[in-house]
Amino acid sequence: MVKVYYAPYARSLRVLWTLEELGDAYDGVRVQFPPKLNDPAYLDIHPLGQIPTFVDGEVKLHESMAICEWLAERQLGNDLIVEAGRAGRTDYLQWLWFGEATLMPPLGALVRQTFGPEPGRSDILRDEALAAFQERVGLLEQVLVGKAWLAADRFTLADISVGYSLNLGTLFKLHEQYPPNVAAYFGRLRERPAFQRAAALA
Amino acid sequence: MVKVYYAPYARSLRVLWTLEELGDAYDGVRVQFPPKLNDPAYLDIHPLGQIPTFVDGEVKLHESMAICEWLAERQLGNDLIVEAGRAGRTDYLQWLWFGEATLMPPLGALVRQTFGPEPGRSDILRDEALAAFQERVGLLEQVLVGKAWLAADRFTLADISVGYSLNLGTLFKLHEQYPPNVAAYFGRLRERPAFQRAAALA
Repeated sequence: MVKVYYAPYARSLRVLWTLEELGDAYDGVRVQFPPKLNDPAYLDIHPLGQIPTFVDGEVKLHESMAICEWLAERQLGNDLIVEAGRAGRTDYLQWLWFGEATLMPPLGALVRQTFGPEPGRSDILRDEALAAFQERVGLLEQVLVGKAWLAADRFTLADISVGYSLNLGTLFKLHEQYPPNVAAYFGRLRERPAFQRAAALA
Repeated sequence: MVKVYYAPYARSLRVLWTLEELGDAYDGVRVQFPPKLNDPAYLDIHPLGQIPTFVDGEVKLHESMAICEWLAERQLGNDLIVEAGRAGRTDYLQWLWFGEATLMPPLGALVRQTFGPEPGRSDILRDEALAAFQERVGLLEQVLVGKAWLAADRFTLADISVGYSLNLGTLFKLHEQYPPNVAAYFGRLRERPAFQRAAALA
């Protein structure tokens, strides 16, 4: 059985969510975050102490979206990927990457500014990160006009990529200010049973 | 002809590099960075002012790796993608995402700490970012033992993803401290004619 090392609010939620959408069995191992301080045994699993780690026999992966892509493509007949050449492929790629490369950096800065060591905390950097996140969510707001999902009119890994980041925003109560289309979209994501099972674990 | 909006050291280098590897013709448009201050007309092209923007008829994309994937998959017969089900696919996915999700956040923090507004600069945060980047490059060092490229024994988009980030490190002279396997790998990347043509532009 595949094994997933996870922690609350970590990117492992994307992996658990994907496994739940696929109906795959898995063995979840909870790690105390941050492992460098709270779970040093985990550093034998991942030398940087990052979460998730995914293990399936010889395969060991650490990048959350790499794991999600690999899980989805090895199970035939699911709809989580928009394949090359299919309608919606460019939207799929755009939002798959946007959820990580554009939405996560300001959230990462907020995590550092909120939970990191006191030295290095700065109201200026916190405000910059908040403004950047809200501006980026504003772009999503425009894209979601008249759309239930980000690509190909169905729920895909692009929604898991972006949905995880929107969910991380709840840690800072940012969801209370999501504009209407984003708020409705986030509501649809949170209603999914697979999300609820994954979030209850993580 | 496709159009690419680019700026020096921006993620647009990944797109130009991919186009050069593929031998595709393109129209490159240089943007003065950061556009919010220096090139406000660009905000009509991308409301967040991020670089790159890629335009091909109806298709408009902003995420660098989404653009690279799309360019490679629409041109038959190239080797830049390791397709699902092929040997090396898990390595390919892992390093494709690693170049952005793991290597870029500390580099983004260094950009902020070096070129951002004076308020908010902090030696503590700069040192944290340097240490995080070096630790992550250390993981790459182990992976590159006995390997010329990151996946499937050939040059792929995973190398363009990671190679761009290693190249951004030169802006902070970090390449002078790359450990031996990473230094040799970075040397191989910089010897590629396609990289040289793209870097000369950007």
